[in-house]
Amino acid sequence: MRIDGTAYRTIWPDGEGVVAIIDQTRLPHDFAIVRLTSLEETAHAIRAMLVRGAPLIGAAAAYGVALALRADASDRGLERACATLLATRPTAVNLRWALDRMRGRLAPLPESQRVEAAEAEAAAIADEDVEINRSIGLHGAALIRAAAERKAQGKSLGEPVNVLTHCNAGWLATVDWGTALAPVYAAFEQGIPLHVWVDETRPRNQGASLTAWELKHHGVPHTVIADNVGGHLMQHGKVDLCIVGTDRTTATGDVCNKIGTYLKALAAHDNGVPFYVGLPSPTIDWTIADGVREIPIEERDGREVSELTGRTADGRIETVRVTPDGSPVANYGFDVTPARLVTGLITERGVCPATRDGLLGLFPERG
Amino acid sequence: MRIDGTAYRTIWPDGEGVVAIIDQTRLPHDFAIVRLTSLEETAHAIRAMLVRGAPLIGAAAAYGVALALRADASDRGLERACATLLATRPTAVNLRWALDRMRGRLAPLPESQRVEAAEAEAAAIADEDVEINRSIGLHGAALIRAAAERKAQGKSLGEPVNVLTHCNAGWLATVDWGTALAPVYAAFEQGIPLHVWVDETRPRNQGASLTAWELKHHGVPHTVIADNVGGHLMQHGKVDLCIVGTDRTTATGDVCNKIGTYLKALAAHDNGVPFYVGLPSPTIDWTIADGVREIPIEERDGREVSELTGRTADGRIETVRVTPDGSPVANYGFDVTPARLVTGLITERGVCPATRDGLLGLFPERG
Repeated sequence: MRIDGTAYRTIWPDGEGVVAIIDQTRLPHDFAIVRLTSLEETAHAIRAMLVRGAPLIGAAAAYGVALALRADASDRGLERACATLLATRPTAVNLRWALDRMRGRLAPLPESQRVEAAEAEAAAIADEDVEINRSIGLHGAALIRAAAERKAQGKSLGEPVNVLTHCNAGWLATVDWGTALAPVYAAFEQGIPLHVWVDETRPRNQGASLTAWELKHHGVPHTVIADNVGGHLMQHGKVDLCIVGTDRTTATGDVCNKIGTYLKALAAHDNGVPFYVGLPSPTIDWTIADGVREIPIEERDGREVSELTGRTADGRIETVRVTPDGSPVANYGFDVTPARLVTGLITERGVCPATRDGLLGLFPERG
Repeated sequence: MRIDGTAYRTIWPDGEGVVAIIDQTRLPHDFAIVRLTSLEETAHAIRAMLVRGAPLIGAAAAYGVALALRADASDRGLERACATLLATRPTAVNLRWALDRMRGRLAPLPESQRVEAAEAEAAAIADEDVEINRSIGLHGAALIRAAAERKAQGKSLGEPVNVLTHCNAGWLATVDWGTALAPVYAAFEQGIPLHVWVDETRPRNQGASLTAWELKHHGVPHTVIADNVGGHLMQHGKVDLCIVGTDRTTATGDVCNKIGTYLKALAAHDNGVPFYVGLPSPTIDWTIADGVREIPIEERDGREVSELTGRTADGRIETVRVTPDGSPVANYGFDVTPARLVTGLITERGVCPATRDGLLGLFPERG
């Protein structure tokens, strides 16, 4: 997508043995590009969330394997790279998917061919992610267009379609386009009038810092709201549809996504607002049937809740504590939205009901 | 309640023509007492939320009338004081209640008797609030005790009762005891083991800054969580009951409270967790039947969302911006939880269903 008119991806090869990323921890206040040159730097970038979002994590891990093999292309080096990268984010299912794919491609090759093959495979993973997301965008844009046509037939002719999203499943979370936001970008490019309600998404504020930033710099109308606001907006007809992303979707359509997604799905259900999930099929976990019971939820450092980082009026980046000294904090990273609350899953192959049959209709090879 | 062992109220007369309050905007990092001496200072204290919470706002407004009459005890002075104070917070129904009561008591008196009578009436309003809240506490503690007994009969013998609360409806929001937290304090004093999940309550963070602070300093076990977390906790059996406060409850049991309350009520309903509201009867608006349609929702300054204030590691208080420059922000202060999602209303006269009949059963004089 565009940053003030210039096209970018979130990760790209930048010369011999160098992979460039946007340091997303410095957004929205600073736009900084970081150059990765080793396994350790890549693992750190994933663990410290310089790159985040399931698809981008997968691509970054793939490039990380390529960087690792430059230092050690042996079987042991390959295994060490995969193990190190897999440990960085336990919830991201397509981290594992990308690493399995890299291992499967590279292990049979002689050491001398592995670096070149790894770079090609990482590039393929990145390109495929872009194509998948572009397809999600086109399928989802049809839903936004339908909402616009419903408004035009009612009394709301010319009013923008209001989309609510949670967290950042925009192009910054992928190699390009995004998942939840791909339909927004596609609809925007088609000239459909729209406006995005951006949940700030505590505790890490990915909505306020990343979604708002990428929509702003691409030129999409949007408004940042506290996570608490969505229910009120839906009660008053101010949301036409919700679209969120997912870190992991079960074979039955349960959706594991950023903590708080479940609350928005409840509000959408209570107010008859369609609730969609944009997902690339690598984030489907075909081995899991009951998301609430079976998906382990990452507990993260409590300082993500008790401390916030931002920019002061005179331009300094400061971290401030908002809780009392000595008050305990708990920080669950994700929750699971039961499939019964999900109107549809927007995949690269089309939109389907959030059911096993719905998913198998689009992915019959998994049946 | 206690601050590290010393008993406090949130507002008290502090010598001739002086009313003392705790400056709640400086919590949780600084404990500062502010002395009010005029109408203007009192209006500012309410508007800028040095004092907040429906019952405390009512008491502060009453004391503000008394301070105003010291400068001008005429009819015009009385009307000006009431009008100025009423304009500070449009949503707080018992701000109007307290001012109507002051006007009704004072208008018939000769000017020479008004200051003394106003001070006595303000003190009576404060004392009555304490008594009301103490009663809410005793009625609500019985619900917590029942939950503890259910746990003891099950496999959870000795485990604390987990109460989730939103915003601050603790003693800092009242003259003493609190409304939502009065049952917590009463149960704590009765020796019932309990633990409170404290929603941080964006955008103003009254949970993280005030509820956590008052529980910590009174000695009540608690954990601060992002507002997004409650649904996940309820899905996993980690919440035994929710208790929240209210700024305004309709005659039919709809509950207007801090933005985000509705989302927690939906999650409680979806998971079979009882959802209670602690309310003093002056916050019941007997003239309103449909809360979602009829209660106007205050829109506040967007900087409450885009900027946060806290303490740096080296002790400075700093305000930082968390959204991108140029991203619009919307800030709705309250939402309305429909009565169908409320298990019961905890009033000073007992617990009743959130229905017109339920309320009239406790307040038959309103029938």
